[in-house]
Amino acid sequence: MRDTVAIIGVGLIGGSIGLALRRRGLAKNVVGIGRSEQRLQIALERGAVTRFTTDVGNGVADADLIVVCTPVGRIVADVQQASRASRACPPHALITDAGSTKGAICRALSAGLPGVGVFVGSHPMAGSERGGVEFAEPDLFDGCVTVVTPTEQTPEEHVTAIKAFWTSLGSRVVRATPEEHDRAVADVSHVPHLVAAALAAATDGQFLPLAASGWRDTTRVAAGDPELWQQIFSENRGHVLQSLAAFEKVLSSFRKALEDKNTAEMVRILEAGKEKRDTLGS
Amino acid sequence: MRDTVAIIGVGLIGGSIGLALRRRGLAKNVVGIGRSEQRLQIALERGAVTRFTTDVGNGVADADLIVVCTPVGRIVADVQQASRASRACPPHALITDAGSTKGAICRALSAGLPGVGVFVGSHPMAGSERGGVEFAEPDLFDGCVTVVTPTEQTPEEHVTAIKAFWTSLGSRVVRATPEEHDRAVADVSHVPHLVAAALAAATDGQFLPLAASGWRDTTRVAAGDPELWQQIFSENRGHVLQSLAAFEKVLSSFRKALEDKNTAEMVRILEAGKEKRDTLGS
Repeated sequence: MRDTVAIIGVGLIGGSIGLALRRRGLAKNVVGIGRSEQRLQIALERGAVTRFTTDVGNGVADADLIVVCTPVGRIVADVQQASRASRACPPHALITDAGSTKGAICRALSAGLPGVGVFVGSHPMAGSERGGVEFAEPDLFDGCVTVVTPTEQTPEEHVTAIKAFWTSLGSRVVRATPEEHDRAVADVSHVPHLVAAALAAATDGQFLPLAASGWRDTTRVAAGDPELWQQIFSENRGHVLQSLAAFEKVLSSFRKALEDKNTAEMVRILEAGKEKRDTLGS
Repeated sequence: MRDTVAIIGVGLIGGSIGLALRRRGLAKNVVGIGRSEQRLQIALERGAVTRFTTDVGNGVADADLIVVCTPVGRIVADVQQASRASRACPPHALITDAGSTKGAICRALSAGLPGVGVFVGSHPMAGSERGGVEFAEPDLFDGCVTVVTPTEQTPEEHVTAIKAFWTSLGSRVVRATPEEHDRAVADVSHVPHLVAAALAAATDGQFLPLAASGWRDTTRVAAGDPELWQQIFSENRGHVLQSLAAFEKVLSSFRKALEDKNTAEMVRILEAGKEKRDTLGS
C-alpha cells in the first residue's frame, strides 16, 4: 500500500483513479488537487480523495506517486510544477499522466524534470463522453488497456512501477513508444471521434426525431468536451491528418462506387468494414 | 384479434413482428413464409410463427394482413406475388413492408397491385447489426418510431389500419411521404452507416487491440449485412449522395482547420456536433 498518491485534476479519470485506489485499499491518502474548491468538494464527498487542496505545492509535497489528469494542453506544465514542489525522496517520486496524446508530452519531459522525480507517460484507454467526477467509477479501468510510453531515457525500474500501478487498478498494460501510441490512437480513437463529431454536426436537425440506435451509436462520442478534444487533435495533428486521409480515401471510393452504380465495389468496401468490426464483437 | 397474419421473410424484423403479435395476443395464426425450411423451423421453435411454408401462395392465401420483411431489393416483387396469391376479401387484404427505403417501392406499388389488396409502406426504425430470427425480440418495436408512408392514392382507411398495426406492437407512428422518409433516413441512418463502414474499413488492423468504446460505438453498425446495405444505398442513391456531400463538407472544414491550426474553428465544429448529439441523450 502506498502512503500518499496525489491526483492533479480530479475529473472523470482522476476521480476514477481515486475511487479505485481507495476501493482496492491501495493508498492510505489520496490528495485531490484542482482549481475549483467546489469541484474538489464533490470529489471528497464521492470518496474519490481523502483530502483536497488548490495549492499544488502543498498537495504533492508528501506524495510518492503523482498522477496528472488534466487536459493534454496543460500536462507538461502541471508535471513540471509538481516536480518542483515535490519533497519526496528521489527514488520514490514517480509522476505519470493520463493524457490521450503522448509524443509532445513525453518529448518535453523525457530530458529530465526541473525538480524531483521521474516522469513516465500513461494513457488509460477508458473514459466516456461524460466528463466530471460525478461520472467517476471505481471500476472504470477494469479490463481496459493502458498504454505506458517510456522513452529511451526512462529508467526501467520506473517503467515497472508505473505498469504495476495501472495493473493494480485492474487495467491491462501495453508498452509502446510515444510515437507508436500516437499513431495508433489517431487511427482507433482520434479520427473516429472527429468523424462522429462531423457526422453529428452535418445531420439536419429536423430529421433528428427519426434518429434510432444507428445514429446514436455512431455519434455517441461527439458529446465529448470540444475544448479537450481540440487540444487532443492539435497535439496529435500529424498522425490525425494521416489517419484522416486514409478514411477520406475509403469514403471517396464508396461515393464513387455509389455514383457509378458499382454494386460490387460497394459490397467490397462494406465487407472490409464488417470484417474489421467483427473481430471486436458487439 | 386478427385471424391470420402472414410474414414474408422471417429474420430479425419479421421474427420480432411474429413474436410481438403472439406475445400480445394480436393474431390467432402467424404464418412464416421464406426460402429456407431450416430457418423457418428455427422461427417456429422460437415461437415467432405458428406454422410456416416456402410456398407464398399457400402462405398468404387466408391472411388478412401480409407483412413483407425481405431485403429492399426484393420487396416490390414479393408484394406483387403476395397480392396475386391472396384469396382474402378485398377490404381485408392489407399488405405492408418493413423496408429501409420507401420511394422506389411505394412508387412501384401505389398505382395498384396485380391481384387483391392495398399496399401501405412502413419502416420500423428498429433493428440491430445482427440479422436473423435468432436475434428477434418481442419488444423490438417498443418505443421505436415506425414511419408509415402512404401516397396520394392510398385510401385513408388503410393508412389508419397500418398505423394501428404498428401501434399495437408498441411502436410510435410517424406519417411521411415516401420522399420525405427517404431524405430523412439518408441523413440519420444511411450516411451514418456508410461512414461507420468506411471508418472500420480504413482502420489499420494492427491497432485494433487498442480500440476502446469510442471505436466500438462509432463502428458498431458496420457489422451489418453488406448485401442488404448495398441494396439500401442503391435504392436511396440520390438522397444518400446529398447527405454524404453535407458530411464531406463538414469533414473537410475540420481537416482544413486542423491543417491551418485554426483551433477556434475546430472548437466551433466540435461544438456544433455536441449540440446536436446532446439533444438525444446517451
